Amino acid sequence: MAEIRLYGFWRSLASYRVRVALRLKGLHFEERSVDLLAGAQLSDEFAQVTALRAVPVLEIDGTTLAQSLAILEYLEETRPEVPLLPADPRERAAARSMALATIADAHPLIVPRVRRYLSERLSLGHDGIEAWGRHWLAEGLGTFERLLSRRPPAPFAFGERVGIADIAVGSHVAGAELFAVPLDPYPHVRGLADALAEVDAFAQSHPSRLKPDANAHP
Amino acid sequence: MAEIRLYGFWRSLASYRVRVALRLKGLHFEERSVDLLAGAQLSDEFAQVTALRAVPVLEIDGTTLAQSLAILEYLEETRPEVPLLPADPRERAAARSMALATIADAHPLIVPRVRRYLSERLSLGHDGIEAWGRHWLAEGLGTFERLLSRRPPAPFAFGERVGIADIAVGSHVAGAELFAVPLDPYPHVRGLADALAEVDAFAQSHPSRLKPDANAHP
Repeated sequence: MAEIRLYGFWRSLASYRVRVALRLKGLHFEERSVDLLAGAQLSDEFAQVTALRAVPVLEIDGTTLAQSLAILEYLEETRPEVPLLPADPRERAAARSMALATIADAHPLIVPRVRRYLSERLSLGHDGIEAWGRHWLAEGLGTFERLLSRRPPAPFAFGERVGIADIAVGSHVAGAELFAVPLDPYPHVRGLADALAEVDAFAQSHPSRLKPDANAHP
Repeated sequence: MAEIRLYGFWRSLASYRVRVALRLKGLHFEERSVDLLAGAQLSDEFAQVTALRAVPVLEIDGTTLAQSLAILEYLEETRPEVPLLPADPRERAAARSMALATIADAHPLIVPRVRRYLSERLSLGHDGIEAWGRHWLAEGLGTFERLLSRRPPAPFAFGERVGIADIAVGSHVAGAELFAVPLDPYPHVRGLADALAEVDAFAQSHPSRLKPDANAHP
């Protein structure tokens, strides 16, 4: 029996954030896939796991946690040896603020339940839904570019150590890749994403590595 | 000169969260209004304040903080005397997770920039935009009801002390009021909201108290 179990999905950017954090902290975990594209997060079975009807969910230390940022903060509080936040409170706030630019601004707009509303209630077609996703991902990239240009990565967002801001930017860039949003207008973001791609915890956790087809046709 | 300055807006639910937290912590602050309905958050002047182009922004301790949850965590780290989070890490995670059900799920869907996209890009009319807002507010209320029915408020979400989960629920309920979403189907939420309305920090910070018309025509 695994001591830590993640309910996630290969395409879920929030699951990606938790996977990266677990690996940065050196924690072994088992992942169970909840097929968001098939609506498995809305099943009665999954309702027993979480009242939030969403992934990621982490079973750890005899409790069940939901919401990627709450999980990251929990890991930080209980496993502080590899810190994901700076030490100074103002820096911690700046790192959380940057992370929230996707966790609480851009990413919530492109999740399956929103795409479903656009399709079923607003009769938006495939192209319109893709344009919607690209718009909000580009908006988020623009925000990150403004933040990172004021304070260039060195090499990571808050210095030499990877942290929650990097995890958030990395997840947002993974979303941009899924929606084919080009990174060219965002050189600071692209530079940071290139640096993150070299970090094992990011590379091993990336949606492209977990996509079912990616394994069937390597 | 005020030592703490909040850039907010009467209708902004995230500004409401910060106002409540400041008052719970007993902190005096000056508020400057950024008229989101007029697009003032997109002005060159406000771009000097924050790269995020959104409220709330808090100037405090010689630094400038954005994102309501990052601000709440900062206040908690630097002014721990009146705690907004439980002591136990698992409880802290549960409180953050509940807070994020609106901060990172429901609320991002109803902010001005999203309503603008619906209007300008998708040609959605007033009724459609109101229906959109009511849908996501009701979804959030449903999530809170499920969470609170599993663990009823006593009298607040995490016991006798008001905290970030209550602040989040209170802000979400304020949003439901703005969009005229009835609370009847959510008795646990309504009970908690009634308890919060009795708390000065909530009553004094509520959008209805700050609405310009409310002062002109008391």
